[in-house]
Amino acid sequence: MKYCFGVDVGGTTMKVGFFRADGNLEEKWEIKTRTENEGAAILPDLTASLEQKRSDLGIDQNDIIGIGMGIPAPVKRDGIIRMTPNLGWNYKEAKKELEELTGLPVFITNDANAAALGEMWKGAGAGHANLLMITLGTGVGGGAIVDGHILTGAHGAAAEIGHMHMSEDETDFCGCGNHGCLEQYSSATGMVRVAKKLLAASDEASSLRDGEVTAKSILDGVKAGDALCCKSADISFRYLASAIASAAALLDPEICVVGGGVSKAGQVVLDYLGKYYRDRAFQPDKDLEFTLATLGNDAGIYGAAKLILDEMGIEA
Amino acid sequence: MKYCFGVDVGGTTMKVGFFRADGNLEEKWEIKTRTENEGAAILPDLTASLEQKRSDLGIDQNDIIGIGMGIPAPVKRDGIIRMTPNLGWNYKEAKKELEELTGLPVFITNDANAAALGEMWKGAGAGHANLLMITLGTGVGGGAIVDGHILTGAHGAAAEIGHMHMSEDETDFCGCGNHGCLEQYSSATGMVRVAKKLLAASDEASSLRDGEVTAKSILDGVKAGDALCCKSADISFRYLASAIASAAALLDPEICVVGGGVSKAGQVVLDYLGKYYRDRAFQPDKDLEFTLATLGNDAGIYGAAKLILDEMGIEA
Repeated sequence: MKYCFGVDVGGTTMKVGFFRADGNLEEKWEIKTRTENEGAAILPDLTASLEQKRSDLGIDQNDIIGIGMGIPAPVKRDGIIRMTPNLGWNYKEAKKELEELTGLPVFITNDANAAALGEMWKGAGAGHANLLMITLGTGVGGGAIVDGHILTGAHGAAAEIGHMHMSEDETDFCGCGNHGCLEQYSSATGMVRVAKKLLAASDEASSLRDGEVTAKSILDGVKAGDALCCKSADISFRYLASAIASAAALLDPEICVVGGGVSKAGQVVLDYLGKYYRDRAFQPDKDLEFTLATLGNDAGIYGAAKLILDEMGIEA
Repeated sequence: MKYCFGVDVGGTTMKVGFFRADGNLEEKWEIKTRTENEGAAILPDLTASLEQKRSDLGIDQNDIIGIGMGIPAPVKRDGIIRMTPNLGWNYKEAKKELEELTGLPVFITNDANAAALGEMWKGAGAGHANLLMITLGTGVGGGAIVDGHILTGAHGAAAEIGHMHMSEDETDFCGCGNHGCLEQYSSATGMVRVAKKLLAASDEASSLRDGEVTAKSILDGVKAGDALCCKSADISFRYLASAIASAAALLDPEICVVGGGVSKAGQVVLDYLGKYYRDRAFQPDKDLEFTLATLGNDAGIYGAAKLILDEMGIEA
């Protein structure tokens, strides 16, 4: 039996999965991401942890196919990272360095792309070769799978659906420096921003006035029939559905997988997309299937493992 | 020397190119597209014309690599067309039928995709493997090249940038049945629609009141400093730039090639895109290069030829 590692590098922890080449997740664990000193310890820490696990399990180095890795930055096939504030790296030849440290083949992709590939392989998108994944968290992340492979783009920055330009009238800045990006309305943070604007604009009664305004409290309010919550969620999900309709006109996927913290609200999210998507979608895309992600925080390690298996030509 | 045919099938004529396998266009000609009787004569007419040309030139059948074809409908790799009003076909196994008629390998793609591939190969996009092509004509056509290959999509309907959803407030219908599609503002027809609305809404003096309102007369007015023309073109190109910015966030191309009748206005089109694109584009996409198409009506036959060469594994 052959094995591989799938790694999902975040700003606080690295999630690691040890997979059999047939796709079975044997073990998973986390290690701290030490971002100080321009993240100099990240790859050596990872190498030590992988080597320890391999040795503990008594697996021969020759039976390890390689390492797939998702990182929070744009990255191309060369595995060179130009900038990632979350990890402290500036210019970093991460693929080459990790290959030298471990003696194993390494392939790297963006973390949202890895999650999309993971959901296609073992999650909500299984059986579909053309998939769009939307992650509704602090931002709106996106990953696109085309004919079974990650859509990478010229700068490794494809499928950045959170930064589609959705409004000419927005005066607030997005984190990216522009005005009117999707994630200003439809991320967890964006949903709160929209609701707070509505709260400030009137004295309308709302459950949101009694506690912290979060994406969860807004969607709980929707479920309870709170009118202001409904108005707020309408705005957030109409923008999201409109962006997905435009993304479908461009990418023509079979399925749209919705993940991230906001998706934990469940069916209400799919109901909103059902309500607003179809009227805005181009004819061939109207029957796009929407589904909730199923792998949760493991999507990234699954996708990273699938990436290295694909790149090494292993069917799984 | 080996050869191939590149065919661009339109609703009135089929454009045909006879190419050397190194990419040199040896001869080109047109034949009538007979759409009556559900387009039954189209493939037999084409077959007869190709055979005649081969015979006239004294080329051995064994030296013909195959036929690439662009058609005005969504089409996947299987070369089956579900519906194309322009040609009269309903369900049509076009690839299979043409292979049986000619005894040659056939690959088919959408005509806008073929044009994009043509511009990448021998036109304005030469040297770029990730390209977005926008064709500003009666509609807004789109074709996307990813890593040197056509982005096809699950239904063969990818890169339909003309049907990105750009406005919630539009009351007029798009030809596709939706409201607020890009081509309602930025196609030649859409530009006229926008200008006529402005003309009707005020008594403002404008050169457009003296003759026919066309995309050309609007852009001629812009060049002459006509205020209403400038206002109108502002609206049309702001929507176009916004759509391209969102498309770039998703596809992350290196270059955007602008073709079609409207692009004949030249530099003014690029100036407008320069004015509105950058502020709306995500950081990694801000330096997207804009350029005018150079192959004109031949883009489709070049792209079709490149498609068959690629599919048959011939470097050109």
